[in-house]
Amino acid sequence: MTDQQHKIHKKKMKKLKENIDASIAAATIEKGVGILLTGNGKGKSSSAFGMVMRALGYKYKVGIVQFIKGQQLSGEEIFVRDRCPAVSFHQMKTGFTWETQDRSTDIIAAKKSWAIAEEMLQDDRYHLVVLDELTYMLSFKYLNEDRVLEALNNRPVDQSVVVTGRGGGKALTEWADTVSEIKEVKHAYNSGIKARKGVDL
Amino acid sequence: MTDQQHKIHKKKMKKLKENIDASIAAATIEKGVGILLTGNGKGKSSSAFGMVMRALGYKYKVGIVQFIKGQQLSGEEIFVRDRCPAVSFHQMKTGFTWETQDRSTDIIAAKKSWAIAEEMLQDDRYHLVVLDELTYMLSFKYLNEDRVLEALNNRPVDQSVVVTGRGGGKALTEWADTVSEIKEVKHAYNSGIKARKGVDL
Repeated sequence: MTDQQHKIHKKKMKKLKENIDASIAAATIEKGVGILLTGNGKGKSSSAFGMVMRALGYKYKVGIVQFIKGQQLSGEEIFVRDRCPAVSFHQMKTGFTWETQDRSTDIIAAKKSWAIAEEMLQDDRYHLVVLDELTYMLSFKYLNEDRVLEALNNRPVDQSVVVTGRGGGKALTEWADTVSEIKEVKHAYNSGIKARKGVDL
Repeated sequence: MTDQQHKIHKKKMKKLKENIDASIAAATIEKGVGILLTGNGKGKSSSAFGMVMRALGYKYKVGIVQFIKGQQLSGEEIFVRDRCPAVSFHQMKTGFTWETQDRSTDIIAAKKSWAIAEEMLQDDRYHLVVLDELTYMLSFKYLNEDRVLEALNNRPVDQSVVVTGRGGGKALTEWADTVSEIKEVKHAYNSGIKARKGVDL
């Protein structure tokens, strides 16, 4: 690398740092954030669990409610159950709707799980609440969207909430402070590779 | 809900289940997967750490190498360091390039970190290896892309690897079995909300 290239690189990095410092200085509001992780790609629930780990690093209280989950626990769920006793962890556990294929029992299960989520959303001891796959409850109309949004909007000011699932709808997108859309560019599945324990499951 | 609506829902769910069952039956190759988590949105590293949690649930051996990380540990890093002693965890720790603003020392640090990653990629005891923010090492040309791809391609057959970071380039995208692009739809940052411990940090 020539001295000239080195100089250009340094200048570029300096500018980048200045821009980032300015943005950091401008962001001064201290409040819990609402995060929506949506899209058809792999990584929505993983990302929510990564944030759970982040919160646990600071010993914050975490609540997780999982909607539409199969009977079998996946790796991160085993980890939370066995190694993170401080986390309040609830699963709807009726299995996927395409396995139960019964709308009425699914609605009852969804409402029960929502009641638990609602309690967390009223409890300021929770620093982080994860509502995994909640979006489907809204798109299937298992839960009332207005009621869900009311609870999200009235939560304690310092509480952060992560909602995951495809779609999500206009109201949830407007509610969220941060929205990431996880797009599937490609998936191992489509090359015939079986789902892996410890990665997919 | 009328009987007719109920019937339609059941039929739709049955079809969905059939499609999913067919795809699961077709995916029979058992091997570790290469995953690239890219894009400008929030959730790439979180998602990688979620997969770490997933692997730890099954008590698999995990290795993490973080490139371009600041001096300060974030929540998930504190958690891994304090609560997951079985994880091999290495951080480049020179701080962000726009903080050091010195290309030569960054390259030395990148190469040192890469040497540790390379060892993991040759060790079949590792079930999952996370190379957090590796893409920047390639786009800044701190590391040689051919050498990186050679190590990724020659890794143990049952080992999965997660690479995170914006961009990634054509070769890395081709290498990966699964690619998710995390798009920023919106970010709390831009509404003036400060980064939160336990969510962003």
